[in-house]
Amino acid sequence: MTIEEIASLMEESVTGEIFGVWFLIGAALVFFMQVGFAMVETGFTRAKNAGNIIMKNLMDFCIGAVGFVLLGFSLMMSENYVLGIFGVPNIEMLTDFETFLKSGNAASFVFNLVFCATAATIASGSMAERTKFVSYCIYSAVISLFVYPIEAGWVWNSQGWLAQLGFHDFAGSAAIHSVGGLTALIGAIVVGPRLGKYVKDNAGKVKKVNAIPGHSLTLGALGCFILWFGWYGFNGAAAWNRESLASIFVMTTIAPAVATCTTMLFTWIKNGNPDVSMCLNGALAGLVAVTAGCDAIDVFGTVVIGIVSGILVVVVVEMLDLKLHIDDPVGAVGVHLANGIWGTLAVGLLASPEAPARLEGLFYTGSFKLLEIQLIGIIAILVWTAITMIFTFLIINKTIGLRVSREEEIKGLDSTEHGLPNAYADFLPATESLDYRYSEAVNVTGDIPVAEAVTIKKVPTFDSSITKFTKVEIICKESRFEALKAALIDIGITGMTVSHVLGCGIQKGKPEYYRGVQVEANLLPKIQVDIVVSKIPVRDVIETAKKVLYTGHIGDGKIFVYDVENIVKVRTGEEGYAALQDVE
Amino acid sequence: MTIEEIASLMEESVTGEIFGVWFLIGAALVFFMQVGFAMVETGFTRAKNAGNIIMKNLMDFCIGAVGFVLLGFSLMMSENYVLGIFGVPNIEMLTDFETFLKSGNAASFVFNLVFCATAATIASGSMAERTKFVSYCIYSAVISLFVYPIEAGWVWNSQGWLAQLGFHDFAGSAAIHSVGGLTALIGAIVVGPRLGKYVKDNAGKVKKVNAIPGHSLTLGALGCFILWFGWYGFNGAAAWNRESLASIFVMTTIAPAVATCTTMLFTWIKNGNPDVSMCLNGALAGLVAVTAGCDAIDVFGTVVIGIVSGILVVVVVEMLDLKLHIDDPVGAVGVHLANGIWGTLAVGLLASPEAPARLEGLFYTGSFKLLEIQLIGIIAILVWTAITMIFTFLIINKTIGLRVSREEEIKGLDSTEHGLPNAYADFLPATESLDYRYSEAVNVTGDIPVAEAVTIKKVPTFDSSITKFTKVEIICKESRFEALKAALIDIGITGMTVSHVLGCGIQKGKPEYYRGVQVEANLLPKIQVDIVVSKIPVRDVIETAKKVLYTGHIGDGKIFVYDVENIVKVRTGEEGYAALQDVE
Amino acid sequence: MTIEEIASLMEESVTGEIFGVWFLIGAALVFFMQVGFAMVETGFTRAKNAGNIIMKNLMDFCIGAVGFVLLGFSLMMSENYVLGIFGVPNIEMLTDFETFLKSGNAASFVFNLVFCATAATIASGSMAERTKFVSYCIYSAVISLFVYPIEAGWVWNSQGWLAQLGFHDFAGSAAIHSVGGLTALIGAIVVGPRLGKYVKDNAGKVKKVNAIPGHSLTLGALGCFILWFGWYGFNGAAAWNRESLASIFVMTTIAPAVATCTTMLFTWIKNGNPDVSMCLNGALAGLVAVTAGCDAIDVFGTVVIGIVSGILVVVVVEMLDLKLHIDDPVGAVGVHLANGIWGTLAVGLLASPEAPARLEGLFYTGSFKLLEIQLIGIIAILVWTAITMIFTFLIINKTIGLRVSREEEIKGLDSTEHGLPNAYADFLPATESLDYRYSEAVNVTGDIPVAEAVTIKKVPTFDSSITKFTKVEIICKESRFEALKAALIDIGITGMTVSHVLGCGIQKGKPEYYRGVQVEANLLPKIQVDIVVSKIPVRDVIETAKKVLYTGHIGDGKIFVYDVENIVKVRTGEEGYAALQDVE
Repeated sequence: MTIEEIASLMEESVTGEIFGVWFLIGAALVFFMQVGFAMVETGFTRAKNAGNIIMKNLMDFCIGAVGFVLLGFSLMMSENYVLGIFGVPNIEMLTDFETFLKSGNAASFVFNLVFCATAATIASGSMAERTKFVSYCIYSAVISLFVYPIEAGWVWNSQGWLAQLGFHDFAGSAAIHSVGGLTALIGAIVVGPRLGKYVKDNAGKVKKVNAIPGHSLTLGALGCFILWFGWYGFNGAAAWNRESLASIFVMTTIAPAVATCTTMLFTWIKNGNPDVSMCLNGALAGLVAVTAGCDAIDVFGTVVIGIVSGILVVVVVEMLDLKLHIDDPVGAVGVHLANGIWGTLAVGLLASPEAPARLEGLFYTGSFKLLEIQLIGIIAILVWTAITMIFTFLIINKTIGLRVSREEEIKGLDSTEHGLPNAYADFLPATESLDYRYSEAVNVTGDIPVAEAVTIKKVPTFDSSITKFTKVEIICKESRFEALKAALIDIGITGMTVSHVLGCGIQKGKPEYYRGVQVEANLLPKIQVDIVVSKIPVRDVIETAKKVLYTGHIGDGKIFVYDVENIVKVRTGEEGYAALQDVE
Repeated sequence: MTIEEIASLMEESVTGEIFGVWFLIGAALVFFMQVGFAMVETGFTRAKNAGNIIMKNLMDFCIGAVGFVLLGFSLMMSENYVLGIFGVPNIEMLTDFETFLKSGNAASFVFNLVFCATAATIASGSMAERTKFVSYCIYSAVISLFVYPIEAGWVWNSQGWLAQLGFHDFAGSAAIHSVGGLTALIGAIVVGPRLGKYVKDNAGKVKKVNAIPGHSLTLGALGCFILWFGWYGFNGAAAWNRESLASIFVMTTIAPAVATCTTMLFTWIKNGNPDVSMCLNGALAGLVAVTAGCDAIDVFGTVVIGIVSGILVVVVVEMLDLKLHIDDPVGAVGVHLANGIWGTLAVGLLASPEAPARLEGLFYTGSFKLLEIQLIGIIAILVWTAITMIFTFLIINKTIGLRVSREEEIKGLDSTEHGLPNAYADFLPATESLDYRYSEAVNVTGDIPVAEAVTIKKVPTFDSSITKFTKVEIICKESRFEALKAALIDIGITGMTVSHVLGCGIQKGKPEYYRGVQVEANLLPKIQVDIVVSKIPVRDVIETAKKVLYTGHIGDGKIFVYDVENIVKVRTGEEGYAALQDVE
Repeated sequence: MTIEEIASLMEESVTGEIFGVWFLIGAALVFFMQVGFAMVETGFTRAKNAGNIIMKNLMDFCIGAVGFVLLGFSLMMSENYVLGIFGVPNIEMLTDFETFLKSGNAASFVFNLVFCATAATIASGSMAERTKFVSYCIYSAVISLFVYPIEAGWVWNSQGWLAQLGFHDFAGSAAIHSVGGLTALIGAIVVGPRLGKYVKDNAGKVKKVNAIPGHSLTLGALGCFILWFGWYGFNGAAAWNRESLASIFVMTTIAPAVATCTTMLFTWIKNGNPDVSMCLNGALAGLVAVTAGCDAIDVFGTVVIGIVSGILVVVVVEMLDLKLHIDDPVGAVGVHLANGIWGTLAVGLLASPEAPARLEGLFYTGSFKLLEIQLIGIIAILVWTAITMIFTFLIINKTIGLRVSREEEIKGLDSTEHGLPNAYADFLPATESLDYRYSEAVNVTGDIPVAEAVTIKKVPTFDSSITKFTKVEIICKESRFEALKAALIDIGITGMTVSHVLGCGIQKGKPEYYRGVQVEANLLPKIQVDIVVSKIPVRDVIETAKKVLYTGHIGDGKIFVYDVENIVKVRTGEEGYAALQDVE
C-alpha cells in the first residue's frame, strides 16, 4: 500500500465519519420538524381543538416509532428484500442488538423513523377539527407499519425497484410529501368538511364558503420557521461530501425564498393584499418542491421550482376550497401533494449534469429518459397510496367511524375527546360566528312540557298602547346563539349587542378532568344578547327566542325585560322611536 | 512508526476532533432545553405568573453561569480533587486563560454549565406561582455554586468516588434529574400548596382538590418537543464514536415514544380519555429514565424502561396531588425524581453486554453487582441533596421568606414581583374560578366607618308589597368575587350572570412600569354580577354583598338596582315569579 | 514527502472538512435566528399587528435571498474586488454553477445570506406597528442588495480595506448589529412614534410618555432564547479549530449571562423590580457586544463586556424613550446599535494575546493601535450606513410614503395591510387604553346632517325635578372610546363601567379575505360604557357623547337610558345620590 492509497482511504473514512455524525444531527433536526407541524396545524385551526391536534402530532411520532420497531423498518430496509417490492419482516433490533448496531442500522433506523413520522403527520392537518382520535391513531399505525415502509423501500432501499430503475427522490418529495399529501386529500374527502364550512341551499348546492380563521397566526408562523430550519436536516442529512451539502443548503434556501416572494406577489395582485398565511404556505411549498432534486439541480433550476411552487400552492388551496369544496384547514394538499408531484417531475425537467448528483434533466440534455422514470415513480407511489389509504379510511369509517358527532365537533375535540376543558384557561374566548343552523337537530326530551304548549300569562305592561321602549336581555347557550341571531333578524330586529358572559348557577356541567383532577365547572360560558324594541312587540321577541332556544334541557337560558326611558342615536341625533328605525 | 500505527493514531485523532465539535453542538442543544423548560412551566401555569416563570428560567441559567465561573466548575471538575469528594476551588479560567483553553476545559465548562442549569431549573416548575423571586434567585445560586457541583463531581470527575466505584449515569438520570426532582419535591413541600388548590374542612382535612389548569397547552407542548429535541444533545453529546452515538439516538427515540404510548393507554383506561398534558409528561418521563443508561442498554431494555416510566409518571403525579396533597403544578417530581431514580436503577437491571458501554446488568448476566453500585450511588446523591436542600429552603424560609403574601399570590407574581401589569396585554382575561374563601382576611382600616355601622336610608320602593322583580347589578373587585358568589348562594340566590368588565374612574392603581415607563392603570378590571330577585328581599342581597365586599379601601365597588318588568324562562315557558324559582 | 508531512497535511484537511460541515450547521442555526427575531418583535408589540410583523420578518429573508443572488453576494464577496471597496457584480451562481460549487462559494453564499438577513431584520422591530408594508419591502431590498454587501465586504472580503487594515469584527458587532441598529434608529426617527405613544401639550412639548405593552411576553421570551441558541452558530460558525470553537462558546455563554444578571440588578435597584422584558433585552445586549471579539478575548474581558452591556441597554432604551422621544417598540437601538458599537470598541480595549485570535488590546499590551483601527472601522461603517439609509428612508417617505394612515394604524396593520381580520380569532381582545385624542380628525361627510344641528325632542322624564338615578348605556366604536372617556371625565363623570361587546346588525364591515375566502364580519366589536348619573343632567351626558362619537358614518353607535331604582356604594354604605358623589 502506497502512502497515496492510505491517504485516499483515510480521507474516505474521515468523510464517512463526519457525514455519519452529521446524518444523526440531521435526523434530530427532522425530529424537530414534528413540532413545526404541530404548531402550524394548531395555529391554523381553532382553540377548542388545540389539545387534540397537539396530541395527534405527538402520537403520530410515538405510535409510528413502535410500529417501525415491530414491522416498518425491516419491511422497508431489510437486506432480504423480495422482488424489489418489500423486505422480509424481522425484529432483529429487538433480538440481535449487536448485529443491529454493527451493521450501521441504528443510524438508519433513527433517520428513517423521523422521515416516516413526517409522512404520517401531514394528514392530521387536513383532517383537523373533526376526526375521532382513536380512528386517527389507527390510521397512523397503518401508514407507519405498512403503507409508507413499502413505497419508501422502493425508493431508498438500494434493492427497491424504483431505486434500480434510476428514480431520483433525494429527500422525499414523492416518497414522503406526495404520499402524505394524497393521504391528506383522501382523508379530508372521506371525513367531510367541518360543520359550518360550506353552507348549502335546499338543493344541496354550496351557496357560501365560510372562512374559519385559525386561533394563532404567530404559532403557525413559528411552526413554519421551525419546519424550514429542520428542512436543512431533512434535505441535507444524506449529503455525502461538503460540496453536495453546500449545494443542498443553497437550494433549500433559495427555493422557499423565491416561492414565498412569488406567493406574496401573486396574492397581492390577485386579492389586493399580500396574504400572510398563504405566504407561510408558500415557503413550505418551495421546500417540498425542492426536496426531490436538492442535490441534482442548479441555482437556475431552483429559481424555476420556487416560482412554480409559489403559484401552485395558492391555486390548489383555493381550487380545493372554493371549487371542489374539500375542507383542508391547513392547506396540506396544496403544499404537500401538489408540490410533491411538481418537485418529483421537476427533477426530470431541471436536473443539471453540473450539480452534485450529475443527473440529466430534459432542459439541459434534451433527454426525456429521466422525466419518464420520474413519472413512472410518482404514479406508482400515488397509486399505491391511493389504494391502501382509501381502503384504510373506508374501513375505519364503516367500523368505528372516522368522525366525531356533531355535538362533539361544535363543543370542540379537546373537551369531548380528551376531557380537557380549555387549552387556554386564562383567556376569555371570542364568540364563534359560524352558522351551524343546518347541522343541528333540536332534541326535545319528554320530561318537561314543550315551551310552546305553556299558556302565557297576561302581563299588563305589554299591552299598553303608548310608545314605549323595552330592553330585552337574553341569556343563552353559546351553541344556540347563531340560530337565535338568525331568528331575530327574521322578525325584523336590526340591532343587538352581544357579550360573552359567565352564567353561574347550581346547575353543574359534566365533570371534566385535568391531570387526573376533577375540574369544577359551575361557571358556564353564556351569551348575553341585548335588544331594545319599540314597534316590534316584546311578546314576539320573547316567543321567537323561546322557540329557538328551547331544547328541554337544563341551561336553556332566561330572558329579562326592562323598561327603557329613552334612546339616542349618535349619528343622526334622533331620539326615541326614530333612533331604532334604520339600517344600523 | 509504521504506516498502520500512524493510520490508527490518525483515526483516533479524527474521531476526537469530530466528537469534540459534536460535544459543543450537543451543549448548544442542551442550552436550548432551557427554553423548553420555560415553555413547559409557563404553559402549565396561569397567565398572571407567566413573566415570573420566564424570568426564573432565564435567571437560573444566568446566575448559574456566574456561580459556575466563580466556584462551581472547579468544585466539580478540578484535577486537584480531594478524597474523591470535591475539587479545590480556583478561578483559573479568570486568571490563567491560556491554560484553561489548552487543557480542553473550555468545552467542558460550557457542557457542564448547561447541565448544571438543567438541574437547577427543574424546581422552578414545582414551586411555580407562589415562590418569592429573590428567594428563588438565592436557591438557584446555592444549587449551582455548591450542591450540584459536589455530587456531579462524584459521578463525572474521573477521580470522583462514585466514578471510581463504577457507578454508571451516562447523562444524568441521577446526577441531574433525581437531584432536580428531589429539590422540586422539597421546595414544593416547604413553600406549600397554591391558594385554593386544596380546600380543607374545619378539622383541617383536605375535602376537595381543585385543578388549576395551565394557561397555554400549546406553549407547554412546544416546550416538551423542544426538550425532546434538545435531549439528543443531552444524551448524545458525550458519545465517543459513531456506534455509540447511533445507539444513543435510538434509545433517546424509542424510550419516550414507548413511554408516551403507555401513558396514553394508561390514562385512557383509567380516566376514559387519553390525557394530553399527561402524555406530554409521559414523553419527558421516558427521556429522563433512559438518560442514565442510554449507552448501556439495548432496544429491549429501552422498551421496558419506557413502559415503566409511562405508568410511573401518572401514578406519582396523582399520588402527590390526590393523596399527599403536595402541589407540583407541572409534574416535576413525577417526571424527574421518580424517573431519575428508576432510570438509575434500570442500568443495574437492564445493562446489556452488547451495548456500547458493555456493562453487565442483572437480567443479562445474573450479577447483582452493578445494581448494588447503582443503588449506593442514587442513595448517596439523594441523601446529599435532601440534606443540603432542606437546609437551604428552611433557612430562606426563616429569614427572608420563601413565599409571597396571599394578596400577591392572588394578584399574580407578574405585577407584584416584576411590575409587569399583564404578560398578555391585548387579551381579555377569563374570570378565575378558584375559591380563595379560606385564605383571605378582611382588612378593615380605621379611616372609614365600617359599612355595617352606616345607617341605611329608607328607600320606599323596597318596601312595596306587590310582586316585583328587581335586577341587582354588583360591580366588584376580581379578588372578592369568589367570596361574593358563596355568600349569595348562602342566602338562596340560585342564578347569576357574571361578566368581566373594566371599571373606569379617577381612582388610580399603584403605578406600574413597563420597560421603564409608567403604565397608566385607570381602567381596572372588575367583575359585574347581575342578579334578578323577587321573593328574596333586595335589601338582603345588598346587605350581603356589602358585608362581603367591604374592605374599607377605595375600589370596593358599587351596586345598582333596576326595576325589571318581566322575566321569561325559555325552557319551561314560565314567566314572572315562577321563572325565578328553580334549579337553573 | 515524509510521513510527518502527510500526517500534518491530513490533519489540516480533516479540520477543514469538519469545520466546513460545522460552518453550514452554524448557518442553519443563524437562519433559525430569523424566527427568534420574529417572535421577539411580535411578542413585544400589539396583537393587531402580529401578522404584519411576522410577514416583515419572513419577507426580509426571502427578498434578501433574491437580492443576494442577483447582486449582493458578488458585490460583497467577489474575488474581483475594486479598491478594497466593492466587488464587481456578476451572476455567476446562476450562469456558471459548476465553478460556483467548486470554489466553495456555495457554503459562503448560504452563510453570508443568513448574516445579511439578520442585519436587515433588526429595523423591523424599531419601525413596527406603523410602517407601510410595501415601503418596508423596498427598504429590505435596498439593504440586502447594496448597503449591507458593501460594508460587509470591507470587513469580511479578504481584499476589503478594513480587513486589510486589521479591523477585527469576528461575527458582526459592527458589520451586522451596529448597521442594523443604526438603520433601526434612522427608520424610527423618519417614520415617527406610534400614535398615542407621546402625548403633547399645546406647545408641542411631550408632556407624557405612554407605555404600550406587548401582547405576548412568552413569545417574546421564546424568541430571545431562540436567538441565544442560534448565536452559538452566529458566533461559532467561522471557528477554525476546536480550541477557537470552545473559546467562542464560553464567551457566547458568559457574556449574555453576566449582562442579564447586571440588567436584573440594575433595574431592581433603579425601579424597585427586576424587569422581565428588560432582562431579555439584556441577554441580547450581551450577545451583541461579545460578537465582535468572541475569538479575541478571555473570560475576564467577557465579564467586563457583559457588565457594561447589561447597563448600557437599559440606559439607551430609557434615554431614547423618555428623553429623546424616539419610539423603538422592541429596544432594537439599545440592543444592536449601542452594544454593536461597544462590542467593536471592546475588542480594541480587551483583546487578549492569549485568546485564539491573538490580538493585542489596550488593557493587556498598552497599545492603542487596535483600538484606533476599531474606531476607524466602526465610524466608517456607521457613516456609510447613515448616509445610505437616511437617503433611502427619505426617498421612500417622499414618494410612496413610509407610514400607514392614522386610521390604519389605529385599526391595526393586520386587517388594513393584509386583509387579516384577527391573528387570534378565538380570543376576546382587551380594550385598548391609549389616548388617540390628539391624533384623530373628525371626518364629517355631507350626506347626513351634523348631529349638533338636529333639534332635540323634549322628553318629559328628563325634566322632572325629583332626585332620580338614570343609567346611560353607550355603545360605541372601539376607536372612539378614549375620546369619549376623556370628554365624560371633563363634564364631571367620575365612574363608569366598560365592557367589550359585539354589536350585531345588518351593517356589514368591509369584506376581508382569509386564505382567499371572504370573512363575514357582521359581528363588529364595540365598547359598551355604562354610567349612572343623578345631578349631572342626563341630557349633558347624551349631548357630550353625541358630540364626541359623531363622525357621520354608519356604526357611530347608540345610547340607551334606563331608570335606576337605587344605588348602593359598598365601601361607605351610602345609598342613592350620596353613593355617586365621590372619588371612586
